[in-house]
Amino acid sequence: MKIAIPLYDRFTSLDAVGPYEALSRLPGAETVIVAERTGPVPDTVGSLSVVATATFDEVTDPDVVVVPGGPGQRHQMSDGPLHRWLRAVDAHTTWTTSVCTGSLILAAAGLLRGRRATSHWLAVDQLAEYGVTAVADRVVVDGKYVTSAGVSAGIDMALGLAERIAGERTAQEIQLMMEYDPDPPHDAGSREKAPAAVVEQLLAQREQRLAGARPATPAVAEGALS
Amino acid sequence: MKIAIPLYDRFTSLDAVGPYEALSRLPGAETVIVAERTGPVPDTVGSLSVVATATFDEVTDPDVVVVPGGPGQRHQMSDGPLHRWLRAVDAHTTWTTSVCTGSLILAAAGLLRGRRATSHWLAVDQLAEYGVTAVADRVVVDGKYVTSAGVSAGIDMALGLAERIAGERTAQEIQLMMEYDPDPPHDAGSREKAPAAVVEQLLAQREQRLAGARPATPAVAEGALS
Repeated sequence: MKIAIPLYDRFTSLDAVGPYEALSRLPGAETVIVAERTGPVPDTVGSLSVVATATFDEVTDPDVVVVPGGPGQRHQMSDGPLHRWLRAVDAHTTWTTSVCTGSLILAAAGLLRGRRATSHWLAVDQLAEYGVTAVADRVVVDGKYVTSAGVSAGIDMALGLAERIAGERTAQEIQLMMEYDPDPPHDAGSREKAPAAVVEQLLAQREQRLAGARPATPAVAEGALS
Repeated sequence: MKIAIPLYDRFTSLDAVGPYEALSRLPGAETVIVAERTGPVPDTVGSLSVVATATFDEVTDPDVVVVPGGPGQRHQMSDGPLHRWLRAVDAHTTWTTSVCTGSLILAAAGLLRGRRATSHWLAVDQLAEYGVTAVADRVVVDGKYVTSAGVSAGIDMALGLAERIAGERTAQEIQLMMEYDPDPPHDAGSREKAPAAVVEQLLAQREQRLAGARPATPAVAEGALS
């Protein structure tokens, strides 16, 4: 069971590490961090780099691919090494998956055409531009394509994948070892549940970013999306 | 607001990256990955390394310290560079915190004596050896010392810290940008909620490890604890 996580500059760390933590613990799993070049790949905040130990050329037949999102995604939307690699390995994968705006990269690479998929709540609408049916769910499974919503949703996706790959019991063991019994201080993690003022502020910041303006309010969490 | 995350060989990636993802997005936050030496620090699975960009000597006055856990913790229990650094910076911190078995390191460094603290459910009992009152909660706050349970509990801890540092509104924005609206496929993330057979198997594996034996069953999730 080979699991490949492709990175690019300004990915979101938790998008990659959440699924990594669950999937790399599957019995027999061999996980590789892959990128255009080997060496440190800086995340979007810029304070953390994860080391890619293999180039795209060196990883030819992963069983599972997990594409993280992050602001760097916007520079991965045209044909290039990542798209070519994704299309090539997708011919061999059992599961082609993404977290957050990673689904936009899969979509732009042409792999989600005609399928249902999700993304970060502030980006999910963009999937339609690539012939994808956008679904605002936390995890969307369409055939072997599994996409998840923003950042932390990759953990839930990975536990579901672990179950499909290795069975319920193994998935539960992994969950218990990760002590994934979530208890956030507020129930504010989705567009529907967060206070309206918080949702509106983040929507306004997105509009400012899309318009090319620097948001007036310090964008606390700007890094998380495209 | 300087946030320091000290790493050591065989830390657990999500222990470090969960809190990083939330705290590094605080307005004005400056986050640094610190270790005895700069360069890649391999995690416990061995497939992912995070780059330390500063040595302990170079980080003298962080406001927040987050100590991750992981199997490498067992090699950080005697006096050494990490303990000395923790004691030195603790004199300046606003918050000294840990995830998973990171609390055992804080305890061994003498920083939790007489306090209440938590740890990974398979390790929390060990806190008593260091004069700490072990509490099997997900997040335990005692003065400026905030400890969290296994691996994923660091995310909940960090959102609570974000609120104490920057207010409820900012914490909710960060949560919504991380889309932290958890929905695991099973409710199996705690000792109380997981099926008894799963709990018993992991307890038996721990006994085998403590006895120095290699567990007969492939330890799916062995990496997560000491």
